[in-house]
Amino acid sequence: MSKINFKIILSIIGFLLILEGVFMFTGIPFSLLHCETKCYSLLISGIITIISGAVIRYYTRNASKNIGRREGYIIVSIAWIVISLFGTLPYLISGAIPNFTDAFFETISGFTTTGASILTDIESVPSGILFWRSMTQWIGGMGIIVLSVAILPILGIGGMQLFVAEMPGIAPDKLHPRITQTAKRLWLIYVLLTLVETILLMLGGMDLFDSLCHSFATMATGGFSTQNASVADYSAHIQYVLIVFMFLAGTNFTLHYFALRGKFKNIWKNEEYRYYLLFTLSVTILITFIWILQSNINNIEKTFRDSLFQVVSIITTTGFVSSDYLIWPGFLWFFIFLLMFVGGSAGSTGGGIKIARHILLLKNSSAELKRSIHPQAIIPVKYNGKAVSQDIIFKVMAFFLIYLTIFFIGTFVMTLFGLDFKSAIGSTIATLGNIGPGIGKVGPVHNYAWIPDMGKWFLSLLMLLGRLELFTVLIIFTSSFWKK
Amino acid sequence: MSKINFKIILSIIGFLLILEGVFMFTGIPFSLLHCETKCYSLLISGIITIISGAVIRYYTRNASKNIGRREGYIIVSIAWIVISLFGTLPYLISGAIPNFTDAFFETISGFTTTGASILTDIESVPSGILFWRSMTQWIGGMGIIVLSVAILPILGIGGMQLFVAEMPGIAPDKLHPRITQTAKRLWLIYVLLTLVETILLMLGGMDLFDSLCHSFATMATGGFSTQNASVADYSAHIQYVLIVFMFLAGTNFTLHYFALRGKFKNIWKNEEYRYYLLFTLSVTILITFIWILQSNINNIEKTFRDSLFQVVSIITTTGFVSSDYLIWPGFLWFFIFLLMFVGGSAGSTGGGIKIARHILLLKNSSAELKRSIHPQAIIPVKYNGKAVSQDIIFKVMAFFLIYLTIFFIGTFVMTLFGLDFKSAIGSTIATLGNIGPGIGKVGPVHNYAWIPDMGKWFLSLLMLLGRLELFTVLIIFTSSFWKK
Repeated sequence: MSKINFKIILSIIGFLLILEGVFMFTGIPFSLLHCETKCYSLLISGIITIISGAVIRYYTRNASKNIGRREGYIIVSIAWIVISLFGTLPYLISGAIPNFTDAFFETISGFTTTGASILTDIESVPSGILFWRSMTQWIGGMGIIVLSVAILPILGIGGMQLFVAEMPGIAPDKLHPRITQTAKRLWLIYVLLTLVETILLMLGGMDLFDSLCHSFATMATGGFSTQNASVADYSAHIQYVLIVFMFLAGTNFTLHYFALRGKFKNIWKNEEYRYYLLFTLSVTILITFIWILQSNINNIEKTFRDSLFQVVSIITTTGFVSSDYLIWPGFLWFFIFLLMFVGGSAGSTGGGIKIARHILLLKNSSAELKRSIHPQAIIPVKYNGKAVSQDIIFKVMAFFLIYLTIFFIGTFVMTLFGLDFKSAIGSTIATLGNIGPGIGKVGPVHNYAWIPDMGKWFLSLLMLLGRLELFTVLIIFTSSFWKK
Repeated sequence: MSKINFKIILSIIGFLLILEGVFMFTGIPFSLLHCETKCYSLLISGIITIISGAVIRYYTRNASKNIGRREGYIIVSIAWIVISLFGTLPYLISGAIPNFTDAFFETISGFTTTGASILTDIESVPSGILFWRSMTQWIGGMGIIVLSVAILPILGIGGMQLFVAEMPGIAPDKLHPRITQTAKRLWLIYVLLTLVETILLMLGGMDLFDSLCHSFATMATGGFSTQNASVADYSAHIQYVLIVFMFLAGTNFTLHYFALRGKFKNIWKNEEYRYYLLFTLSVTILITFIWILQSNINNIEKTFRDSLFQVVSIITTTGFVSSDYLIWPGFLWFFIFLLMFVGGSAGSTGGGIKIARHILLLKNSSAELKRSIHPQAIIPVKYNGKAVSQDIIFKVMAFFLIYLTIFFIGTFVMTLFGLDFKSAIGSTIATLGNIGPGIGKVGPVHNYAWIPDMGKWFLSLLMLLGRLELFTVLIIFTSSFWKK
């Protein structure tokens, strides 16, 4: 193999930093509008970030344009870390989060669209900084869309090539123009959906600032709210809008593209989407039903809405909270806990294991039983009507196993940091799955402030691992990656 | 496919029932020696069981001898259930366990070598009945040895064909004589080891009755004790003897055969054995070390012994208790909990996932990372020095995934029966893994008496599923199993 082209890696990181700095500026109007102290922290942070990016670009201006597979892995992993490092500046400079560990945790939680927070009083944070906090998620969501639809399928990570349909009309042979074309179209959809949601939230009585912040958090399946009570105190109108857009954010974005072009048949043909819709609805109805059976309910609509909201919020890995599921009657909280292992659709901004992988594994388990009865017969697994190669199923199984291994190891490590069993489990799955709220003392009405520093760094790593589909990060730690 | 030969299935079950009845008689001497009331319950139970078996044999005397793959699956699953049903007779007739659900739970817990008990005061149970209780485990262990070394590899379940070495000198082409020959040799080893352990326990001051009962439970990796405190009150001599024989019981029995023939090189060549030994030792040393660091220890030998005992007891899925690991300092209990997912060696009497499967999956995960870097390269997984076919790895992964799925579903079902989170997790893994003691309220100093009846039936199913390597049972519930 050839030498790794570090110059182009740095060059791209430099470019991304300049973009990040520009995005920081977008919060300045809100900073000035509600200015109390240190109104210029966003401006200063943006300038530092842009200058840093520009300096890197200058020193790497003669980089060769060769980007191979290995450069791809490094760029993706490093980009999320470097951008999170610079993303702490607004928190640190404004003093909203004075501790570096906390600031990094909050930032990477944003960029990985996790939504796990260390803030104990969100409402006391200056508006400009809250805007940046929501913006980190939105930027992260943009990164994820292009990553999962355009980059990971090419790298062949965890079966993504199967799940994410080709964007129609895009030349499949050239890497660079293909990524650019795909990204542009999907980002347009992303921006469009964000705008529509913002308008619908404002029609529900939310002001522009909160509407934008919540739209950013929704479309990125992030889950940061501007309120201490998350979205529990908002009206039914607003909560239903959030439900619809969380669901859309958890949908494969190429399907939105089909919808825009009127090709609704293609959407219903998509097996993952069908299961996603049916699973969400049936689980919601089941939870509502059990809830009504177990308690004296006088508001069935509210019960249904709370169930639907939390089911969608957890499956899509958004993590907004409309109701504390840990105090739901009986074992219903455990239901929600299991949903944390589901994950959104492939090609969406949702994290976790992903629905498509579950479908494939369930089908393969059933096929494997049949194979044991008829060892000579060839029993294929079908997805979207086509037989899936054993190679892809293999990759999906390996992904699933590594995911669960990391979950178990993660839980173990968190107990080392002194967490009780439930909180260790909850913090691990909520960060690895990029959800946000978990169970135990990191539940829906809690936060991550109390976790020891080392624990926060470890959870940050889990967020990154989960967000980048594990392999992208893990590969860099193998010796054969670095061998010539 | 041909019609299923139900007559031969019944005929074999009848034969097994006659054997079971004979085994019941072996406890009669102890019944009479310590006779208080109902001294003849073992005799009566044995007679009923033998007559039932004989009647079945009589009506199926003209059965065709054709045993195919499907008959194999049915025989194995049904045998464990029918034998457990008749195995309840001594408990019910003596009145030691008057409730049928409880009696069935205790019996299937024995035959599956699980060792989960519903008895709250073991020492008040008549000796003859306790002997039968230990005997159920020993019989179960005999069944498992022949199942895992001779039958499952032929059926191709979960990669067993790879892990269990061919017995040397046994004709591989004929099914029936091969099973018989293999079984005879391995049972001889099993009986021999049981006798040696009994003698060594007696040398440690245990009486014949307790020595036999504990040897039965050890060699079967069952874990039923005759004492309320399990083996916590016994001397260091006895505990070390138990440790050694638990370890031997968790070893692939074909390796014992090699050892008897002096072929020690073959043993060390076995990759699973090497990892089994090294893993057990290193985990023990780690636990001892952490324990000493976290508490004021004045008896290092006792700390080491308790660590070693519980590590071996849990990895081999025996479930004897020398120390309540749930009150060990810090997170050490969680360490033990994770060990519950390891399991003994393939071809041993130990249950669980099995060490060989973990080795294969870890190697494959690492290979999969390398494959992502070099997608064109063929990177095989090696086991015992040979490349493993993708097909076997596939089966092992499917096994692992189905195992974890059942674990998650099981935990969920147990919460439906009103169990708290820890107890639900603990009871599920402790029965599915055929261990016995779990965590929460089914921990090492607790028992299963308090669990609701429906929960006991469900856990009984988990014991059966885990013991028969999942597929054997699950296959019967697929529609294609019954299709012509």
